[in-house]
Amino acid sequence: MYILLRVGRGSEGDRIELETAAPGREPRQDRSRATRRRLLEAAVECLSEVGFSGATVGAVARRAGVSRGAAQHHFPTREDLLTAALLHMSENRLAELRRRAADLPDGGARTGAVVEMLIDAYTGPEFSAALQLWAAAASDPGLRSHVIPLEEHVGREAHRAAVELLGADETVPGVREAVQATLDLARGLGLASLLTDDERRRRRVVGQWTRMLHQALTTH
Amino acid sequence: MYILLRVGRGSEGDRIELETAAPGREPRQDRSRATRRRLLEAAVECLSEVGFSGATVGAVARRAGVSRGAAQHHFPTREDLLTAALLHMSENRLAELRRRAADLPDGGARTGAVVEMLIDAYTGPEFSAALQLWAAAASDPGLRSHVIPLEEHVGREAHRAAVELLGADETVPGVREAVQATLDLARGLGLASLLTDDERRRRRVVGQWTRMLHQALTTH
Repeated sequence: MYILLRVGRGSEGDRIELETAAPGREPRQDRSRATRRRLLEAAVECLSEVGFSGATVGAVARRAGVSRGAAQHHFPTREDLLTAALLHMSENRLAELRRRAADLPDGGARTGAVVEMLIDAYTGPEFSAALQLWAAAASDPGLRSHVIPLEEHVGREAHRAAVELLGADETVPGVREAVQATLDLARGLGLASLLTDDERRRRRVVGQWTRMLHQALTTH
Repeated sequence: MYILLRVGRGSEGDRIELETAAPGREPRQDRSRATRRRLLEAAVECLSEVGFSGATVGAVARRAGVSRGAAQHHFPTREDLLTAALLHMSENRLAELRRRAADLPDGGARTGAVVEMLIDAYTGPEFSAALQLWAAAASDPGLRSHVIPLEEHVGREAHRAAVELLGADETVPGVREAVQATLDLARGLGLASLLTDDERRRRRVVGQWTRMLHQALTTH
């Protein structure tokens, strides 16, 4: 058995925490990271399943199997928790897109594959969670001030990833806007698939868009 | 002074209602229609400003200056009221688009003007109201069963209007999907403008989209 001594300077003077850890158990920092990640994932699930009004710190903590106090240690407010969850989710999605990009074909087939990947990134429970947060922020100024910088950051990162994956040359007039339109279209298709599974329609629209985008990226 | 006699057969036997109306006052049926319209417009405002959770029958009736009982006479449930409001709003929007279409230019300039009109139809408080209802329906099966047929109906009507306004020939391969993509893009741009006014970015995307759409509609 190990004994970890953690000495901190608190508001009520120095304090010493004793922690016991059996060999093979995660060290404190890893455990803290894992707790944080569980909270973030539970927050995305909560938002998607029960909407903003049901995604309270308490409900997220329960779903993550974490005490409310521990949740509040990581995220002092509900706004902090929910925006951090969406940021975490977006970063994971973008990292996954970049990993998958290594296996993509070149040339015309690449445009289609990238468009499919981008469109898919805006459907499913994760998009639904983002939508719940956007909708709530529209009628809640306090939440809006948290969500706007998040949305701008994620929008910029998604655009950067799309340019990279498509191999688009943004110095060509119209290319930047065509890439942007792809992301706006993806958001619109995500919204359309929120309540009903309209995958067949979506695939046809995506096929046509791919042809139009490929032409815009290559004709100049 | 007029005296209107209304004889009805109620659950507790025949009943006679007496109504007095001064000359120049709206007849009963017009008044009832006006009340209904006020409720529908107040419901859209409520949804947009305070979200689904705040858009109760009572809150909508108060905003419309109508008694709760009168509101419930027109719309027995909250779901009835809110979906009727969105339907009313969409029908108004589409009728307005068709009226404005008479003044549109022909040829290339027409595509741009129609795309602008369609995109504008998916921004502002009315789109925000629709979004609140969609978001709430995503985590509420009872509401979802009301919203899905509404969304399908409005989607079909919007598509039909877009085809008509653009003068698009849907027998040409890809044209149907390009028109659909325009509406999906409009929804995505509406979502992007929900929290921040991104009109400048939107105008650039719309300009590029117009060029791409015009090519898809005319090259075959």
